[in-house]
Amino acid sequence: MANLKSKHVVWHSGMVTKEDREAIVGHKACTIWLTGLPASGKSTIAVALEKALWDRGVHAFVLDGDNIRHGLNRDLGFSPKDREENIRRIGEVAKLFTMAGVINITAFISPYRADRDRVRALMQPGEFIEVYVSCPIEVCEQRDPKGHYKKARAGEIPEFTGVSAPYEPPTHPEVVLETHRESEEECVRKLLTYLEDHGYIPRNVSTPE
Amino acid sequence: MANLKSKHVVWHSGMVTKEDREAIVGHKACTIWLTGLPASGKSTIAVALEKALWDRGVHAFVLDGDNIRHGLNRDLGFSPKDREENIRRIGEVAKLFTMAGVINITAFISPYRADRDRVRALMQPGEFIEVYVSCPIEVCEQRDPKGHYKKARAGEIPEFTGVSAPYEPPTHPEVVLETHRESEEECVRKLLTYLEDHGYIPRNVSTPE
Repeated sequence: MANLKSKHVVWHSGMVTKEDREAIVGHKACTIWLTGLPASGKSTIAVALEKALWDRGVHAFVLDGDNIRHGLNRDLGFSPKDREENIRRIGEVAKLFTMAGVINITAFISPYRADRDRVRALMQPGEFIEVYVSCPIEVCEQRDPKGHYKKARAGEIPEFTGVSAPYEPPTHPEVVLETHRESEEECVRKLLTYLEDHGYIPRNVSTPE
Repeated sequence: MANLKSKHVVWHSGMVTKEDREAIVGHKACTIWLTGLPASGKSTIAVALEKALWDRGVHAFVLDGDNIRHGLNRDLGFSPKDREENIRRIGEVAKLFTMAGVINITAFISPYRADRDRVRALMQPGEFIEVYVSCPIEVCEQRDPKGHYKKARAGEIPEFTGVSAPYEPPTHPEVVLETHRESEEECVRKLLTYLEDHGYIPRNVSTPE
């Protein structure tokens, strides 16, 4: 419970504002938007970052294929039009989580620059942190944890990003992670440092407990 | 920050679970689904409950027409098919907020019983709290803060719930609020008591500060 904080907060009349929430929970809210090729490491980093944030008491939540594609967006396929609608809805949900005071981390290929820019435009300045999870396709293809690249090369998965559908890297991402030469821990550390340096979360002071 | 709590939590390997989140923030998550006629008082109660919960340090968030109809569901109209899809998506978003550890409060007419039951079925037992905001249509129509009933009676709004489209009351709601004879404060008090009695939030102990 964040009761200890709440007595220092001045309530506005009526609605609870984003600023009220941030004052109570002790950190700012934002969307950390991971984008990159299949098997570039987005989900792994998202889950590890979420855990690292909760370890500090920061309210975080991952939006990924597991909880979106089987739920909210289960009516959508992989055509360019459906991919666009997929990202539009995820962007709107990410915006709601940001309004709610939660640091949300999205882990989707999100291959089209225009779709990502539309999500950025939905939010206030500073609320959208685009993170390019960069990794050469040869490395992604070697990892291939779900065997999707193999199937795509065999023609069994149509419109597979990197093989038979385009990926457009960000032009001005807030953070770049190079998962072929940075470890999971280094990537998470880099993101936490970004959040600290830009005032989203307090610096982690190692106090003896 | 909920750091004070976090040191008592045993981390599971990998993902942060709903139970982890609940242990850290000190309350359970659920969807409080308000349903009722237009102008029955859903939004007023939702906003007042959200504020009352934050006053206790409980992480709460309202989903309503303002943040859904102009965002996630702005591609939908008011035909029966679009109303069904509207509620389906809201249900999926409510489920995500519940997974994230947030007590979310939805304020939508949601006139069809089958649509509400489908949302209930998405969630785990106890996660969906259906609240019937009951008020005679004559009273709602007298209130008519946005002039919608007047327009509907004049035939200017088609398929308006209660006038030219049906409303199906819940058969077994967890809570009933009668806004024609209970005040806003009484309604909020009733909901807080429900949440306390069923272990979603700790009892409010009035400690001197």
